[in-house]
Amino acid sequence: MSFSIREMAQKAKVASRQLAKLSAQRKNAVLASIADNLVSMSDRILAANQQDLANGREAGLSEAMLDRLALSEQSLAGIAGAVRQIASQDDPVGSIRDIRRQPSGIDVGKMRIPLGVIAMIYESRPNVTIDAAALCFKAGNAVVLRGGKEALHSNLALAECIHLALQAHGLDPHAVVVIPDPDRAIMNELMTLNQYIDLIIPRGGEGLIRFVSENSRIPVIQHFKGVCHLYVDKAADEVKALGLLTNGKTQRTGVCNALETLLVHKEIAPTFLPMAAAMFDERKVRVHACAQSLGYFHNAEPATEADWDAEYLALEIAVRVVDDYQQAVEHLEQYSSGHTEVIATQDYSTAQQFIRDINSAVVMANASSRFSDGGELGLGAEIGISTSKLHAYGPMGVESLTTEKFVVLGDGHIRQ
Amino acid sequence: MSFSIREMAQKAKVASRQLAKLSAQRKNAVLASIADNLVSMSDRILAANQQDLANGREAGLSEAMLDRLALSEQSLAGIAGAVRQIASQDDPVGSIRDIRRQPSGIDVGKMRIPLGVIAMIYESRPNVTIDAAALCFKAGNAVVLRGGKEALHSNLALAECIHLALQAHGLDPHAVVVIPDPDRAIMNELMTLNQYIDLIIPRGGEGLIRFVSENSRIPVIQHFKGVCHLYVDKAADEVKALGLLTNGKTQRTGVCNALETLLVHKEIAPTFLPMAAAMFDERKVRVHACAQSLGYFHNAEPATEADWDAEYLALEIAVRVVDDYQQAVEHLEQYSSGHTEVIATQDYSTAQQFIRDINSAVVMANASSRFSDGGELGLGAEIGISTSKLHAYGPMGVESLTTEKFVVLGDGHIRQ
Repeated sequence: MSFSIREMAQKAKVASRQLAKLSAQRKNAVLASIADNLVSMSDRILAANQQDLANGREAGLSEAMLDRLALSEQSLAGIAGAVRQIASQDDPVGSIRDIRRQPSGIDVGKMRIPLGVIAMIYESRPNVTIDAAALCFKAGNAVVLRGGKEALHSNLALAECIHLALQAHGLDPHAVVVIPDPDRAIMNELMTLNQYIDLIIPRGGEGLIRFVSENSRIPVIQHFKGVCHLYVDKAADEVKALGLLTNGKTQRTGVCNALETLLVHKEIAPTFLPMAAAMFDERKVRVHACAQSLGYFHNAEPATEADWDAEYLALEIAVRVVDDYQQAVEHLEQYSSGHTEVIATQDYSTAQQFIRDINSAVVMANASSRFSDGGELGLGAEIGISTSKLHAYGPMGVESLTTEKFVVLGDGHIRQ
Repeated sequence: MSFSIREMAQKAKVASRQLAKLSAQRKNAVLASIADNLVSMSDRILAANQQDLANGREAGLSEAMLDRLALSEQSLAGIAGAVRQIASQDDPVGSIRDIRRQPSGIDVGKMRIPLGVIAMIYESRPNVTIDAAALCFKAGNAVVLRGGKEALHSNLALAECIHLALQAHGLDPHAVVVIPDPDRAIMNELMTLNQYIDLIIPRGGEGLIRFVSENSRIPVIQHFKGVCHLYVDKAADEVKALGLLTNGKTQRTGVCNALETLLVHKEIAPTFLPMAAAMFDERKVRVHACAQSLGYFHNAEPATEADWDAEYLALEIAVRVVDDYQQAVEHLEQYSSGHTEVIATQDYSTAQQFIRDINSAVVMANASSRFSDGGELGLGAEIGISTSKLHAYGPMGVESLTTEKFVVLGDGHIRQ
């Protein structure tokens, strides 16, 4: 295949200039067409998906991977619904804030603008193709999508829905580029094209993200892992704390906002840990316990150093008793992945202190870590979760795909 | 010298946790002490500076470089004044915005927090040592400073002023690390320490910035160059436009917000270019002119492709006549360095259009490009100017050295 990623990225850059100038109304009309196409072209998409699934079975993909790869009428309708929801969100582009007159007499404000071209590198889920394209498009960006090779036919069929919508509205189809060749060499070249691409967002396993971060010449938004903590303070309401623990650990386990470590103040441990132990027994949660807490659990294993860093993504938890608030903070400073940390306490000062002291992307008092997601935090659809502090920190919505320029209005003003 | 940059960066990371929790009052007291020390220790600093100047003369540094290297009683007083001004600015850290109740009942807002540890890599000007340390400190960050080897003694003497101030206030001196060894290998190692350092800001020539951008594993804020444009529209007020041209090109030439290219609408060229030519003659500005404008100037050279990309930083300008507004926009889309662009027009719609269409970091209507600087735009002191769109775009003040985390307040809320 004579496919040039450099040429495609360059064309995406050109298309991005057109996108940056589109009105919210036109962008939303395109998004509506994409949603319509997903439904009306579902036979074609599902046939392509069947091909990917057959290849995947042949290649020996696990049931879990095949499950992530599979599309259905119903899941397509869900994806189309998500696109309509993105269309209904506010358009951040073009809003101006804080115009202030400076001592020189010029008026200075900031206007929100698109980033330009965003590259997404992701693994098997084909829905990411549509989600990412819709979010980037809503924010006025062109996007270059490099999905997993297992999903290639599905992704190309989904790309067709997008391209038909763009063309129906008279727009450059290079606004959304789906790389038709999953060769690793193309991905490597993609990461060098900093004259055309403004941002790379990798979504997938830690290996992929680390590889992209270490090799990209383009800025990367990283999301390594979510080792979320619940600290049950001595002044916690034990019933509420147990609710947070149960919800955080067991409501859904394979997600980055699930709890992985429980810290308990030693003064509340004698009453709280038996409650936690009963819940863990009932929900079949495996426990890795510190020396001070080990005796409270049946069948717990002694926690090792590795457990404090572990993202189990399973019915499994690390438990540590701490001497005081300060020791809890020190534990977090050492082991936090920067994702989400929760305190359970009824003490006003301690809650305030925790909210100030802990600089993870999301810091909570008396709320479940499971709320740490774009939708629940009020951002609408989410394109990823950043655990690095530059540009975006925490769940990223449409606004994270934009930046701000300075706008200066004068009337012939010159500098003295 | 047994200096370990890894160890220093790690200590800076530890110190950064202390800094993040400091009140504005304590930070400002430390800044005041630094300013005091700059004055009271001026003999020592100037002696160290003399040593650098002597070494520089011996090494054959140019007069311009020696000039940038030189400190005096007066310049030290100026630097101390800048530190006091930074102390008097608002502290962005800890401010919370937009707390909103979500449908689930949790309250969600965003709190501004420091980035952590910032590394500055810069060239000969020793005042950057103090400016950068003061700005990073004000924003609650630790900082690792790697200045040029020509300024090493000056930088170490300046570092002493800072360390004495930190120690006098009971703070960890590793909050400000000045690398005592200008070996290139240490800089190279610095750029790999992404577990300790959150951001690198290179300040200096394009070669330095490109080297850091291409080799760093830590996010980099780039400022490549400022090829600032003035577009004189057909509806320009010619007197105002000439004022903007004169101020932008000649008020100060060696700065990134000076004008480098003049674009003139063909309908106004016959009256405006003779005015421009007279001013260029008077101010001895060398002209590189397009074929259509060449005839208006005495001694102009024909512009080549390279002139449209040139950052002259001198009394030198490229001039092009464009057929219409659209051609001016296309010129900017192709050649803009993303720094600052100006339109001179009295036409309301054209001004509005330009402000929307051009996505450089600073876009102006009827104001001099020379206003494109942190102080003039109302940011206070400036740590650099970003021409890449991620995290910060345009002049960067204290707020650019911070990020935001999500704050969630619940009362035992769990996710359904």
